[in-house]
Amino acid sequence: MTITITCFDRSPDGGKGLARDTRVRWALEEAALPYEVRLLSFSAMKEPAHLRLHPFGQIPTYEEGDLALFETGAIVFHIAERHAGLLPDGANARARAITWMFAALNSVEPPILELSTARILEGDKPWSAERMPLVKDRVRDRLGQLSVRLGDADWLDGAFSAGDLMMVSVLLRTRPSGILDEFPSLAAYVARGEARPAYKRAFASQLAINAGTPPAG
Amino acid sequence: MTITITCFDRSPDGGKGLARDTRVRWALEEAALPYEVRLLSFSAMKEPAHLRLHPFGQIPTYEEGDLALFETGAIVFHIAERHAGLLPDGANARARAITWMFAALNSVEPPILELSTARILEGDKPWSAERMPLVKDRVRDRLGQLSVRLGDADWLDGAFSAGDLMMVSVLLRTRPSGILDEFPSLAAYVARGEARPAYKRAFASQLAINAGTPPAG
Repeated sequence: MTITITCFDRSPDGGKGLARDTRVRWALEEAALPYEVRLLSFSAMKEPAHLRLHPFGQIPTYEEGDLALFETGAIVFHIAERHAGLLPDGANARARAITWMFAALNSVEPPILELSTARILEGDKPWSAERMPLVKDRVRDRLGQLSVRLGDADWLDGAFSAGDLMMVSVLLRTRPSGILDEFPSLAAYVARGEARPAYKRAFASQLAINAGTPPAG
Repeated sequence: MTITITCFDRSPDGGKGLARDTRVRWALEEAALPYEVRLLSFSAMKEPAHLRLHPFGQIPTYEEGDLALFETGAIVFHIAERHAGLLPDGANARARAITWMFAALNSVEPPILELSTARILEGDKPWSAERMPLVKDRVRDRLGQLSVRLGDADWLDGAFSAGDLMMVSVLLRTRPSGILDEFPSLAAYVARGEARPAYKRAFASQLAINAGTPPAG
């Protein structure tokens, strides 16, 4: 059955690969699954046809036969559950890999989203300059804890898993601010993710769509 | 095998049930699983013994034999995967229920966490009063989209699932601000969750620990 995902016709990051479709592309590439892409403008994302697929009017979505999913974490998990290479076989190791998926999305990403919000939606507010260091420090708190846990391991729990895919994708969002590079072991962890052939293919495929777009900054 | 979870010895909410252990207790009650509780002080949560279990120094954790998990979403999913009552049988319906778990944690909860942060960590800042309406409006945006999707259904996708458990738990955090009650259909949805016998038992068990604690506000 054909898999179809949605993504921005012009990503706000101009092709840096930070939009969430890259996470799904990466999982599909790790699983060696072919897929098609449907491009959406910002206005199309808010129209009823897309809102039926995605109640929050975002990308990506995932369609496969009569199954329609939204929410990146769920889509990556759906792929990981059905194809080799993204979740370990042992029950306990599998549960821990899933834990890292949720940790990336609910413990590590929220302060990073707050940093994006502070920059994009509140960058012109009178409090922006004074508040920004607090927001960045909350990101640093999480990254510091994560770097302690990672230690000198290659991946978060044994072999590469969907938990690493999600964590690397979330951490990539801290690179433009410079915060990622304050944590050399995490920067190296992210670089290991980026070096995977599947990531490279995912990155290239989103870049091919967005290369003509001026970077958002 | 005995299941042991951790929770605050004195919850910051004084027993309102908003700490994340309530989500895990609720799942355990829906699955009719007995469990034990280990209470932690705020300082114990940051000590090495607990950080080995939970790299971000939070509650809850979940221990069962030689399996140790952290991250509420992962724990609830682990329970839901192994016991009846929290995920539907059909593959597509199951994938959609899992989607709602991730949506609760990565699309709906982040702006709600930001509201908590604005109140708890930035309530004394000079920008607090002017900024708060923006933060609240971002929560309202998400709740408005969710209420459109819920429509007049009882639950998000057919029968009650772990997706509803997680969404109701996340939405409960918007009640103290008054925002939940601005969306009557979501307030009724949350009330349906609270009316479940399993939720009532989970709530009562956390209240029994926290009843003596003065509410935080």
